[in-house]
Amino acid sequence: MEKVTIATVARRAGVSRQTVSNVINTPDVVREETRERVREAITALGYRVNQAARQMRTGRSRLIAVRIEPARDGINGSVLDRFLHGLTDAAGLAGYRVMLYTADGDDAEIATYDELLSAYDLDAFVLTSTHHGDPRTSWLAARDVPFVTFGRPWGAPDTHSWVDIDNAAGTAAATEHLLAAGHRRIGFLGWPAGSGVGDARREGWHRVLGPWGPSAATVDGVEPGAAAASSLLRSDDPPTALVCASDSLALGALQAARETGRDCAVVGFDDTAVAGAIGLTSVSQPLAEAAARCMGLLGELLDGRAPSFPTTVLLPPSLVVRQTA
Amino acid sequence: MEKVTIATVARRAGVSRQTVSNVINTPDVVREETRERVREAITALGYRVNQAARQMRTGRSRLIAVRIEPARDGINGSVLDRFLHGLTDAAGLAGYRVMLYTADGDDAEIATYDELLSAYDLDAFVLTSTHHGDPRTSWLAARDVPFVTFGRPWGAPDTHSWVDIDNAAGTAAATEHLLAAGHRRIGFLGWPAGSGVGDARREGWHRVLGPWGPSAATVDGVEPGAAAASSLLRSDDPPTALVCASDSLALGALQAARETGRDCAVVGFDDTAVAGAIGLTSVSQPLAEAAARCMGLLGELLDGRAPSFPTTVLLPPSLVVRQTA
Repeated sequence: MEKVTIATVARRAGVSRQTVSNVINTPDVVREETRERVREAITALGYRVNQAARQMRTGRSRLIAVRIEPARDGINGSVLDRFLHGLTDAAGLAGYRVMLYTADGDDAEIATYDELLSAYDLDAFVLTSTHHGDPRTSWLAARDVPFVTFGRPWGAPDTHSWVDIDNAAGTAAATEHLLAAGHRRIGFLGWPAGSGVGDARREGWHRVLGPWGPSAATVDGVEPGAAAASSLLRSDDPPTALVCASDSLALGALQAARETGRDCAVVGFDDTAVAGAIGLTSVSQPLAEAAARCMGLLGELLDGRAPSFPTTVLLPPSLVVRQTA
Repeated sequence: MEKVTIATVARRAGVSRQTVSNVINTPDVVREETRERVREAITALGYRVNQAARQMRTGRSRLIAVRIEPARDGINGSVLDRFLHGLTDAAGLAGYRVMLYTADGDDAEIATYDELLSAYDLDAFVLTSTHHGDPRTSWLAARDVPFVTFGRPWGAPDTHSWVDIDNAAGTAAATEHLLAAGHRRIGFLGWPAGSGVGDARREGWHRVLGPWGPSAATVDGVEPGAAAASSLLRSDDPPTALVCASDSLALGALQAARETGRDCAVVGFDDTAVAGAIGLTSVSQPLAEAAARCMGLLGELLDGRAPSFPTTVLLPPSLVVRQTA
């Protein structure tokens, strides 16, 4: 098998070698279309950045750590799994490897940082599931450990670089879609107030409708979703459509609609495999893109190319329209 | 926060410190019930094996590498994600970390082994998706790199330790369940011959029924499954029940039953989130247990406690009965 080099990749993608190098090292300076073409060529040719050579040059381990979540109900848990797949792909393209750890709560996670940093020559962390009062970022910042977060610093200033999905734009698009389909009484089925992501998803619906829609809040899950949707549907002036904060809640809403005999359009959030299987219209997060952008920001940080101020990237989700709305 | 030690864990689980140490280092010598109790205590207390101290003692990195698959249709891809969650948990309990890599095909994976071994101080590999003519195991064995496989060495002698699920037992149980429900014409919807896992799943159905059932083979996926099931259901003597090699195929079978207007019980395989969401009866793989057993075998290998012959572990799956059969 002929050795695949940057030149081979450049030839196949029809770009210069410098552009290939940019896609690997500074993807943000390359136009998306070109980036895609180069990445396709890299994948098709099986090109691999020579990690050992880079480490010798940089003196770094090229190892980044990310938490893997406990296995959950399998519907929503798949979101962070998809982010992890994307991150491993993007890291591999940039010549980095991903190390996994588990941690139950912020204190345990910080203890794990300490342990990992003492035991391994780690370059950086990617943090997920940011939340209000998150102590993890200040711990890492105080120790000058490079990191980016997938998720913005809820309720705190932007003192570090992050990538997030514009959750509010997702539910706003879902609500607009329902309005365009003629619905006038559009409800929201979400989580209790206080979670950054959950509040943003509610906010998008609220932004489009104003204060006129019925809504209910419950912990996530099919059964809690069914119970909460059921009370909304049994009210005197029931909604004809529900925007939901997750596909699990949306499944519950569909179940409640069947049980109460009410026609109700339903939109979920996350476009999980379940949504595809049952024809659920759902908001899709660009998780591979989010992971690639996280890796791009980390690369800037680690190569000393980052600007002196934090970079924040807010990616728009898209609505995948199927049968339920 | 009081420092959590082995003694704290032992007290909470009501066992000796030696037993806690055994659960961490040699889980196979501890009864399952005790093992569960100790693991619960470890999780509840947030106990962490002191990795740095162990590394100093053993001179090893306590780092194991496992491939992460490309994101697939999201239905079947979740199986290896669940295995990965289990492996990370089990590795953490034993004081190991998991490093991820991606590789497209056996040759690329072997090139990646080479690269990883030269760049990182790795202890071992866990290989997934074993198949006929798999060149990866002999490459690692020739270089004395410790590894175990999740998946048996299809068509080759047991020259290394492995953990696998008894796929044939799963489809046999599904077929018995359908017989007990009164079905007499039970078909099989599977993959083309030649894949170890697919052939084993067909074999379990065949073992129970003998040569009397109709069957069809197709690539995996909802649409191919629907097309293949449709021809079976439109035949002169159609099956009244279908055992399927995956939940994707089972979804296709349900779709074909609706479209052809035929009553057809359907059993899937893998008990994915989709199965739970739509009430699909499905065969469930004990993935967390498989991951823990892989880690146990690796621990034996790395600590020099392994017997001189390979250990092979075949775990029984279970049938999760829901509405479709």
